Amino acid sequence: MSRPPSVAAVDVGGTTMKGAVFTAAGDLVVARTVATFGPDGSALTGLLDLLHDLVDAADDAGLHPAAIGISSPGVVDAASGTIAYAANLGWRSLPLARLLEEEFAMPVAVEHDARSGAQAELTALSGADAEHAVFLPIGTGIGAAMITNGAVVRGATGAAGEVGHIPVVPGGEPCACGQLGCLEVYASAAGIRSRYLAIGGTTARTTAELAGSLHSDPRAATVWDEAVDALAAGIVSMTATLDPAVVVIGGGLGMAGDTLLLPLRRRVQQLLTWRQPPRLLPSAFGPHSSIVGVALLALDPPAGERRGFATRAGDCLSGTAHPVGVSPR
Amino acid sequence: MSRPPSVAAVDVGGTTMKGAVFTAAGDLVVARTVATFGPDGSALTGLLDLLHDLVDAADDAGLHPAAIGISSPGVVDAASGTIAYAANLGWRSLPLARLLEEEFAMPVAVEHDARSGAQAELTALSGADAEHAVFLPIGTGIGAAMITNGAVVRGATGAAGEVGHIPVVPGGEPCACGQLGCLEVYASAAGIRSRYLAIGGTTARTTAELAGSLHSDPRAATVWDEAVDALAAGIVSMTATLDPAVVVIGGGLGMAGDTLLLPLRRRVQQLLTWRQPPRLLPSAFGPHSSIVGVALLALDPPAGERRGFATRAGDCLSGTAHPVGVSPR
Repeated sequence: MSRPPSVAAVDVGGTTMKGAVFTAAGDLVVARTVATFGPDGSALTGLLDLLHDLVDAADDAGLHPAAIGISSPGVVDAASGTIAYAANLGWRSLPLARLLEEEFAMPVAVEHDARSGAQAELTALSGADAEHAVFLPIGTGIGAAMITNGAVVRGATGAAGEVGHIPVVPGGEPCACGQLGCLEVYASAAGIRSRYLAIGGTTARTTAELAGSLHSDPRAATVWDEAVDALAAGIVSMTATLDPAVVVIGGGLGMAGDTLLLPLRRRVQQLLTWRQPPRLLPSAFGPHSSIVGVALLALDPPAGERRGFATRAGDCLSGTAHPVGVSPR
Repeated sequence: MSRPPSVAAVDVGGTTMKGAVFTAAGDLVVARTVATFGPDGSALTGLLDLLHDLVDAADDAGLHPAAIGISSPGVVDAASGTIAYAANLGWRSLPLARLLEEEFAMPVAVEHDARSGAQAELTALSGADAEHAVFLPIGTGIGAAMITNGAVVRGATGAAGEVGHIPVVPGGEPCACGQLGCLEVYASAAGIRSRYLAIGGTTARTTAELAGSLHSDPRAATVWDEAVDALAAGIVSMTATLDPAVVVIGGGLGMAGDTLLLPLRRRVQQLLTWRQPPRLLPSAFGPHSSIVGVALLALDPPAGERRGFATRAGDCLSGTAHPVGVSPR
């Protein structure tokens, strides 16, 4: 049986776009990271340039992609490949799959970034864990993928998983969405940095730097504790609603590892007096969940090969395995 | 094709058990309501007596039941027909389906009361509404049924839908579960009555009486407003997580109709600044959702007949249609 030579995938973020081409086995052909907004200020122009660059590089290696996958923030209608609304990208009602299919003459899968990431993370779960799970990537904002009965939930309008707007502090601090006290005001990377500055933090430190200074910087410890409390309240709310077996914590903040997971597990356990808490696990793919997941969606490998593809692709992106063909640069 | 002559269904509650036998068309053969706990203080003895009474009455009418359905509060494993834990009934690891199958020599379906109710309410929804929905019965406590991708969610341990324990007021009033500030402390019938008494309400009025006195009794208005705020916060949380098309409000408090629904819609709309709210609808089956729904589960009629059965059964129980055979008493 002939296998597709390769798949091109792009994870579009608010600041950067990460692109990669993988072989059908998950080996990395080429990887690129570029600014989301190019000189003309258009994320779409930047995406087209990046994709042409990826496809050309794959062609140089004799591995012309058979499909493209794009993960995007915002409200995404995966069935039609349309970005209904992505505030940070300036996209509204953008028929992205159709545009790219015309430009590149190959099938294009488009999916929400958290739901893309869940496709990858699910390959690392087995049995009951993969039936009822939450994938919770914590980055600039907080959006999740809910898995029920073994399937990712899109919701009535494609907006399931917007758990960053669970109200965890009634009448609390204002969120950009207009509500008060949303989870992401307290626990997203942007929220934590902003609150750290607001209480007199002296430099605009990254959340990774804040996480590393909890013992020496009381202000960092304060905002971290509040982030943990808010995340725990959000996880309790999701647990009461859906009873997941596991909650997988990903995104940039998930990279803090035990600095986040240990106090978070403790706090969730304290709150969930009435039941066993779900297991809180670190993401298996770290910052690469969405790009690996949307590559899986575009490639659509046989069920028995999903895990192997995802593992290999993730390892390659993490630098533990060497690319074939053109090197990353 | 021969049709089953009738189905016996019981909705077991903390105070009373409601039993009924329906023909396959949904006509009522007999209906009974008895105290959950009989002279010996055992809910199981009471259930057995009620079922024998129902079956005997159906036999008198020449309509021997072909199946039994039981809806129960607590943590229910529908697959094995076991009540894992129902605090109010004193049941733990009770293999109810097996016990009743041995006693009555017919198939027995056992399901959680909210998930039973959702089976009935789903027959009144169509299209996208039936794909992503929440059925939220508000009674002594608050437990819901979440419908995603057209299917009821059980969760990893059968505990999905325990939305009464969403923390809506961090550090708020204690709940029997051990958490603080749970939704059902503020918005269940028991919670509302208890809070009304705590602020000096002079008689133990029912929530129906409280709902009828909001304009004349400021204390009633206060607890009602707080219940609406708490319910709205819970609905926002569920909406952010699952993006339902509709939230169907049922149970005893749902019977308050527009007295609850109008302020609740207003409050949810105020909070959900960032998206269209789901439609909030009154339950189509009122207090009869669970018994009709579990009759559907036990009878398992062809898909095309579910709605007709449920509508007829609900109408009969509401007294708008006359029973056949033995009269209710």
